[in-house]
Amino acid sequence: MRYFIELSYNGTHFIGWQRQRQGRSVQQTLEEALATILRQPVEMVGSSRTDAGVHASQQYAHIDLEAAITDSEKLVYRLNSLLPADLAVRRIVPVADSVHARFEANHRRYEYRIIRHKNPFLPQQAYLYKPDLDVERMNTAAALLLRYEDFESFSKVHTDVKTFHCTICRAEWEQRGDLLVFTVQANRFLRGMVRALVGTLLEVGLGKKTVADFERIILAKDRKLAGAQAPAQGLFLVEVGYPEGLL
Amino acid sequence: MRYFIELSYNGTHFIGWQRQRQGRSVQQTLEEALATILRQPVEMVGSSRTDAGVHASQQYAHIDLEAAITDSEKLVYRLNSLLPADLAVRRIVPVADSVHARFEANHRRYEYRIIRHKNPFLPQQAYLYKPDLDVERMNTAAALLLRYEDFESFSKVHTDVKTFHCTICRAEWEQRGDLLVFTVQANRFLRGMVRALVGTLLEVGLGKKTVADFERIILAKDRKLAGAQAPAQGLFLVEVGYPEGLL
Repeated sequence: MRYFIELSYNGTHFIGWQRQRQGRSVQQTLEEALATILRQPVEMVGSSRTDAGVHASQQYAHIDLEAAITDSEKLVYRLNSLLPADLAVRRIVPVADSVHARFEANHRRYEYRIIRHKNPFLPQQAYLYKPDLDVERMNTAAALLLRYEDFESFSKVHTDVKTFHCTICRAEWEQRGDLLVFTVQANRFLRGMVRALVGTLLEVGLGKKTVADFERIILAKDRKLAGAQAPAQGLFLVEVGYPEGLL
Repeated sequence: MRYFIELSYNGTHFIGWQRQRQGRSVQQTLEEALATILRQPVEMVGSSRTDAGVHASQQYAHIDLEAAITDSEKLVYRLNSLLPADLAVRRIVPVADSVHARFEANHRRYEYRIIRHKNPFLPQQAYLYKPDLDVERMNTAAALLLRYEDFESFSKVHTDVKTFHCTICRAEWEQRGDLLVFTVQANRFLRGMVRALVGTLLEVGLGKKTVADFERIILAKDRKLAGAQAPAQGLFLVEVGYPEGLL
């Protein structure tokens, strides 16, 4: 039986989604809690591999179990009691055996949150950035992302992907209360891509780069030309979408 | 020269507003940072003495200095750099020498936030409470608070106040996204009052007490009849108001 798990986590004290030899990963923390309660080893496949310090208000993973879960609400309750405060399970739903959390996901949406003033209620949940930004120019540049497909310039260099193609269907900055938020949605993202996009768009907002520079960077397919990565703490995976009827 | 300081803090790791012999208080943390930067001892008077674990998204305090502050924006910037992440200063403004942060405040507004599902982004910033509540009945009971003046039933017993009179001008529950929020505004509050009100109103919401019981509790002026204190982590001081033109 295959199950989808919907979860959310505060990434501050995780080394990222993926299990690694050392350190506290989301995957390992959740696998161990599931194994404790279900009394069997559990392997989990996530929809997206978030990096150290990156948050997820919505993430999905799948697991395969020998026996069906009889009471998924009770399992969610027991898991949340066992899991630490920075990791929560929202629901567990049965799916067809062929549905893969990563391959079947048809879009991901990320938000990058910037705050101008120190806020004691958002520790490590936004990037404190004080300079004045030309948001209109950042949006003009961001709109270009919808016209291109190859984003090699914004990908980490050592990565095993076959192509750098992504279809971005939304990329915009908006003020939301005290937060300046960049929303970007695509079928897939490359490693480090959102943080590299944000770092480069901030340079556009500062006037260090023009909109034309930004377009040249996209076309160059060269990571060295893009800006520095924005810090992990501002980045949230906020939505993972699947074809209708799958979940 | 007297100055008002507008600040906010996440109360989780503070023993409360007030300096005590031991422990990390908001008052002491801020006084020490001011003394370090201004190179003089500083004594601060706050508008409201929040308890251990209680948050403030807006709080005011006053200080008296020999010399005028020449650049208050720069002082705010330096303070925020020196202060820990859970305490932030918003602004520092000169006031007349007679304006007292506590005595001159003419209203305080508190919010109590309840959440039904575990949320990794609000650690210790809401009370996780799962039972079903009859919010309409809680609001009927809360509305009674506007018709009475003496709230001894909701005050801590060992307290040095002269009267238990408070003028409550707002008391209501509302759903705000994932949060159920109780907003209460009055000219003044007694020690432990909001948390005792919330604890008692939750019993009304559960059906353990009726609206008539709630009114009898108000009239009895006996703390033993009210419900248990709701936990500190859900409570926020959100606004302190002064007569127009003072600030």
